[in-house]
Amino acid sequence: MKTIKVEASVSYEVQIGSGLLTGCGERIRAVTPRAVRCVLVTDDTVAPLYAERVERELAGAGYECARFVIPSGEQSKNAESFIRLLNFCADFRLTRTDLIAALGGGVVGDLAGFAAASYMRGVSFVQLPTTLLAAVDSSVGGKTAIDLDAGKNLAGAFYQPSLVLCDYDTLATLRPEVFTDGCAEVIKYGVLGDEALFTHLEQRGQDFDTEYVIARCVEMKRDIVNADEFETGCRRLLNLGHTLGHAVEKRSGFALSHGCSVAIGLAAVARSAASEGICTPECAERIIRCLRRFGLPTETEYGLDELYDIMLSDKKRSGDSVSIIVPEKIGACRVEPMPVARAKEFFAH
Amino acid sequence: MKTIKVEASVSYEVQIGSGLLTGCGERIRAVTPRAVRCVLVTDDTVAPLYAERVERELAGAGYECARFVIPSGEQSKNAESFIRLLNFCADFRLTRTDLIAALGGGVVGDLAGFAAASYMRGVSFVQLPTTLLAAVDSSVGGKTAIDLDAGKNLAGAFYQPSLVLCDYDTLATLRPEVFTDGCAEVIKYGVLGDEALFTHLEQRGQDFDTEYVIARCVEMKRDIVNADEFETGCRRLLNLGHTLGHAVEKRSGFALSHGCSVAIGLAAVARSAASEGICTPECAERIIRCLRRFGLPTETEYGLDELYDIMLSDKKRSGDSVSIIVPEKIGACRVEPMPVARAKEFFAH
Repeated sequence: MKTIKVEASVSYEVQIGSGLLTGCGERIRAVTPRAVRCVLVTDDTVAPLYAERVERELAGAGYECARFVIPSGEQSKNAESFIRLLNFCADFRLTRTDLIAALGGGVVGDLAGFAAASYMRGVSFVQLPTTLLAAVDSSVGGKTAIDLDAGKNLAGAFYQPSLVLCDYDTLATLRPEVFTDGCAEVIKYGVLGDEALFTHLEQRGQDFDTEYVIARCVEMKRDIVNADEFETGCRRLLNLGHTLGHAVEKRSGFALSHGCSVAIGLAAVARSAASEGICTPECAERIIRCLRRFGLPTETEYGLDELYDIMLSDKKRSGDSVSIIVPEKIGACRVEPMPVARAKEFFAH
Repeated sequence: MKTIKVEASVSYEVQIGSGLLTGCGERIRAVTPRAVRCVLVTDDTVAPLYAERVERELAGAGYECARFVIPSGEQSKNAESFIRLLNFCADFRLTRTDLIAALGGGVVGDLAGFAAASYMRGVSFVQLPTTLLAAVDSSVGGKTAIDLDAGKNLAGAFYQPSLVLCDYDTLATLRPEVFTDGCAEVIKYGVLGDEALFTHLEQRGQDFDTEYVIARCVEMKRDIVNADEFETGCRRLLNLGHTLGHAVEKRSGFALSHGCSVAIGLAAVARSAASEGICTPECAERIIRCLRRFGLPTETEYGLDELYDIMLSDKKRSGDSVSIIVPEKIGACRVEPMPVARAKEFFAH
């Protein structure tokens, strides 16, 4: 088991290990000693697998529990679920010293986290990620959100959990494509800042050492987020592969998964960086080969023009320039701000 | 004009003066130099009086404005308005560097503030209070909220504005009962921590020096909130008169205003404090006489039993004890934690 300490505006631990759901009640009790009630937020894929077990553990640690289940999938991360969850907490008479726990992937964590930030202006929040993506990404950094009609993650809060408890045995029940999806973010971390991690992934493929890999990704995210909690600077490094990736994801009407989209974005940015001499052709090749080894896509059939239009409409939201994250070599990237028009040339390589 | 500097997790100014709406665009520009768009949130009472003028000022300072109007009154401070406002911001393509401004009383400020805290996880927020209550109370301290079906202020955020601009000329257009309502909170501040302020109010009645009184209240609230931004300790002093007051307000089905309810609660706590020898009978009498001079009620026809039941159901939310704020003399109060049963005896005097 590995424990990673995150020092944000509030400090908390990410505990990563096999079988951690057993005894999770006591682990949660240690960070919320005064809590009496707990609302467990989960989805209808995860609930039949793990909810009863977690509730038994919570009851054993003295919590009175109520379960809030959303349909699995991004479409549940909406304003209606958010308000329903807040009313559910109120009807359950959750108090300011009580707790909301998220058991599931990123959608569950984002929704439950925003509710925890907002209910009575903030109650304790614990994350039990059950997907690789949630484990390495959405459970660290304090970003919570819901989607609005106009776009993804348009409302939310920066809100830190009291504990993240990652029992990676839960990854065994993921559908293969969901696991693969999370691998794209893991590879991203290797390219971003750790050649040893990347080499491990490139050599082992999907048979990687789960505890080591999750822990390294969490540490890297922790270090970047610590330096930039409210996302005004270097935190943008985490967007490696995401600028074009988001455009591809949007263009597909979200039929293409987030991980596959990021893989395509990562491959594209690697190719362009090599063409411009920012990294070597060998570096770009290694990135693309690794993505393929994991069964991730590295090409898109969408035209650059249509993707560019989507990037443009996305990026208008933060002014006229766009920051592309480019690899200099495996394990070292930089933020490259450029006018939106220049970004099109960059990706045209 | 008086300027009060508030040093919270973010620091900002409360500017209090006559005619401040004139030139408000430039004052707001000074705190949001990069903003391009502004969503102006107001209600259908305030909009016909001041919205055009404020929008002209904002346009003059280079902002592109959109107006979001809610029906006047507490019933607008709900989840539906909140989500509608977030979608309105998204449709207007408000960005992370843009601005939400609240023009109105506490309802407008609380709703707009929670939306500003949540939209894209936080955009700049400016308050232009137009009621006495908003000027002295809800525009300082960073508490934003909406009501849920189960109760008032059950969801929200601690979120600081970039600027509070209080043009007290707007108080002249308040209905007399709304002005009187705000006076209850002003008297509360005098009892709480400033005998000179109390004496001024007791001598002048509703003809008090507006700038001096608002500024003193804001300073006092600032000092208390600074010491306890997230409301875990001494901030509870601000609840003077509110424990019984809230119960009375609730019992009336919110037919009785917040100010009148607080006045009744303040009178009750003064009487009980005198009976228990915490303050002198003269002190209690001064408080009650002052409230009456302002045309505020000091008695309730509701029975203690029914009010006690309401207090009980309210207070279960924070455990089994309740903190009553009691006056020791004019200008000095203390927090008196007591078991809920003891609180009934206390108010039975």
